[in-house]
Amino acid sequence: MLCVGLDVDFDKMPEHVKALAAEGESSFGGQLFTGKARSIVEFNKAIIDATAPHCVAYKPNLAFYECYGIDGMRALDATVDYLRTNYPEQFLIADAKRGDIGNTAKMYAQAFFEAMDFDAVTIAPYMGADSVTPFLGYKDKWAIVLALTSNASAYQFQMAQKDGKPLYQVVMEEMMEISTPDNMMFVVGATKADKLTELRSFCPDNFFLVPGVGAQGGSAEEVIEHGANDFGGLLINSSRGILYADKSENYAQAAAQAAAETANL
Amino acid sequence: MLCVGLDVDFDKMPEHVKALAAEGESSFGGQLFTGKARSIVEFNKAIIDATAPHCVAYKPNLAFYECYGIDGMRALDATVDYLRTNYPEQFLIADAKRGDIGNTAKMYAQAFFEAMDFDAVTIAPYMGADSVTPFLGYKDKWAIVLALTSNASAYQFQMAQKDGKPLYQVVMEEMMEISTPDNMMFVVGATKADKLTELRSFCPDNFFLVPGVGAQGGSAEEVIEHGANDFGGLLINSSRGILYADKSENYAQAAAQAAAETANL
Repeated sequence: MLCVGLDVDFDKMPEHVKALAAEGESSFGGQLFTGKARSIVEFNKAIIDATAPHCVAYKPNLAFYECYGIDGMRALDATVDYLRTNYPEQFLIADAKRGDIGNTAKMYAQAFFEAMDFDAVTIAPYMGADSVTPFLGYKDKWAIVLALTSNASAYQFQMAQKDGKPLYQVVMEEMMEISTPDNMMFVVGATKADKLTELRSFCPDNFFLVPGVGAQGGSAEEVIEHGANDFGGLLINSSRGILYADKSENYAQAAAQAAAETANL
Repeated sequence: MLCVGLDVDFDKMPEHVKALAAEGESSFGGQLFTGKARSIVEFNKAIIDATAPHCVAYKPNLAFYECYGIDGMRALDATVDYLRTNYPEQFLIADAKRGDIGNTAKMYAQAFFEAMDFDAVTIAPYMGADSVTPFLGYKDKWAIVLALTSNASAYQFQMAQKDGKPLYQVVMEEMMEISTPDNMMFVVGATKADKLTELRSFCPDNFFLVPGVGAQGGSAEEVIEHGANDFGGLLINSSRGILYADKSENYAQAAAQAAAETANL
């Protein structure tokens, strides 16, 4: 059930990987990378090779690539290519949290499902069904809509009420009306593990993508206890707890161990 | 008050501009472009040169560049450079509708305010204040938070209630508490022009970015009547009504005229 979040922050990398940024170029996926993008692709390759036996999915967060401009986006593209070529069984999620009017959402669907080869993309539901529908027309692709998130201010707006129900529940129920479990999943934060039983009561069949395990304080055991359904139905994401498990030369081995520990719970 | 939305859709371009995609390369901002990206940069340059005398801001929507992959992002970068170099007085908005947990939002702020040279970025508020705060720490930069959007399903979740108020109002009030009119604006759809008087009653000082004029059916006159404050306080966006005013060789001239008509209301 483990999903490894590839939220690669240059400043948090081991020193010897950071140092590559000042030292020439790396070839990755047939492209050349220099500077910080070089460190990112070397780091991603090592983390992927170490963790792939222990996980079923990878989830790069777009912000961590966009922040380095075009070179960052090239690094993301090359990472997706590397995964597709070497680990074709892995499920690839673009953690992008997009959400826009219909004709724009169509372009985002094209960006993540055609220009890039992701299986799923996370979507913010503030603008309603219009912003989600264009993602649902692709075979074997998923919209993963934010329901109840893992951050401190999650309750600020997600607990607003409609028809006597909290907004996160309304979002899930109304998204379930326009989709099936074969094209829709929901983001449910692990820091709200006690809520998972409640969410399963009205959403028994959809997969939940559960971030917030590890650095954000959520417990994978609790997530499984409260959130699993008969066939599993969970993708439990850990990013910082795996990527930065160790900052020495052994960082990849430490990442593998952290991934194995989370996966074997 | 006019903002021109650079939501450049290859399929809607004049035929002779589309044809460039099959015909060699263009140099733009010191970079070479081929294929659809070539058509996009040629189109953007012509539209910008034609409309700049009539507008105060440009707002590329990221989806329309991301959908062409790396070449699309290079086209966006070159467009921003072209605007900065030739029209330094224009205000540049990344219509990106990002929104993520704090450490990720920080990376998005870096992407739009540092890696790219935008003045402002649109933000979806579903995840609460955490996802907005990192954008507020930049001098002379703006977060533009979605309040009441212009699309058909806008009311689906934006009318949820908190403390007896609709969510869009709660979003605005709570964002006003953590910001000033010098770093925060709100997106308010022109298709809800009758709502603007209500919004001005509790938000007199912030700029409103108003999309939905033109192709989406909103009226610029009504927006000004209901939404202006003592110093204007409006950025009225038109995208499709200007970009695709004409599909002949005269498309740029037609775009200038459409922009002038909207600007002179």
